[in-house]
Amino acid sequence: MVLLEFSMSPLGKGESVGKYVARSLDIIEKSGLPYRLNPMGTVVEGEWDEVFSVVEQCYRQMGKDCDRISCIIKVDSRKGYSGRLRSKVASVEKRLKRAIKQ
Amino acid sequence: MVLLEFSMSPLGKGESVGKYVARSLDIIEKSGLPYRLNPMGTVVEGEWDEVFSVVEQCYRQMGKDCDRISCIIKVDSRKGYSGRLRSKVASVEKRLKRAIKQ
Amino acid sequence: MVLLEFSMSPLGKGESVGKYVARSLDIIEKSGLPYRLNPMGTVVEGEWDEVFSVVEQCYRQMGKDCDRISCIIKVDSRKGYSGRLRSKVASVEKRLKRAIKQ
Amino acid sequence: MVLLEFSMSPLGKGESVGKYVARSLDIIEKSGLPYRLNPMGTVVEGEWDEVFSVVEQCYRQMGKDCDRISCIIKVDSRKGYSGRLRSKVASVEKRLKRAIKQ
Repeated sequence: MVLLEFSMSPLGKGESVGKYVARSLDIIEKSGLPYRLNPMGTVVEGEWDEVFSVVEQCYRQMGKDCDRISCIIKVDSRKGYSGRLRSKVASVEKRLKRAIKQ
Repeated sequence: MVLLEFSMSPLGKGESVGKYVARSLDIIEKSGLPYRLNPMGTVVEGEWDEVFSVVEQCYRQMGKDCDRISCIIKVDSRKGYSGRLRSKVASVEKRLKRAIKQ
Repeated sequence: MVLLEFSMSPLGKGESVGKYVARSLDIIEKSGLPYRLNPMGTVVEGEWDEVFSVVEQCYRQMGKDCDRISCIIKVDSRKGYSGRLRSKVASVEKRLKRAIKQ
Repeated sequence: MVLLEFSMSPLGKGESVGKYVARSLDIIEKSGLPYRLNPMGTVVEGEWDEVFSVVEQCYRQMGKDCDRISCIIKVDSRKGYSGRLRSKVASVEKRLKRAIKQ
């Protein structure tokens, strides 16, 4: 299973690009995949094909009215592990609490 | 003010690097800067010097027992805007809800 | 046309991962797409489907003997522009020379 | 020694941002650090403080007339290795040639 974080934005559409980001989020929401928004991107979890299909749909949508698009994608793929959208954060928080107690 | 997301990990320390990530988080926590964990990194908010000082401290700490370190940093700097650690997500969610209602 | 830079590496395979990188490069080479190696990744130019198909092939190959894979992808898509693998660098160098002469 | 790749661009300054990129390059050039341009960013080699000082100078310069700045930084730090700006690419190319001959 793959965790994929991405942020995609148009260049040349001014300083505020929230309108475009919201459209992408709408596509992610409809994909049915588990996801989590953060201030710098969106993390989606699924098989390679599933998560990249979401990114591509966002790109096609944005391409309708944006000529230049910039996108950053981070992938963390780990065989035999799923549910990491929650568990990765939980596991680090647990370690942190232990570290602080000591 | 700057939003900075980063993920830092050692190479050559096996597949599970949570121990090192937790140490970084401890440094972030002690910095007093607002931050938010996500499954692919940590977002910190502050002035340029403040957020990069946190990244450097994590690097110095990890360098004590790791010979090879890989790090990805994303910066979004916007003059006159602070509190974006919360507001960026909230603003996109609001737009999304409006979009779905329509 | 899309410029895509990516770097893909296994976690848990030691500090030196050149063997795996070379295999990816072999796939890129065979794709027939124009590409350029740099010390931090490889930039490929093509249509969205073409460049992402190369990334996926590298991922499938690496997945054969690596359980955890980390990948960073940067995309710069610009309608109506091709040949940017060369022209982007050339254009910046030209501006730089002008700036230095002045 | 650290290899650092970065790309920094303003948002809200139109689709073509070559002017701003050239100014950054001028700063990099004057730093005296070894660097290499690629179509998606610039790779600089030096100690942590040196390479991050370059990034910060570019940021301060761009901040003079840009209100929103986006920046991606990739760091690969390896103890006891220098000259990797050339050697990393050379080493992968050598492996690739061997692989093709076989």
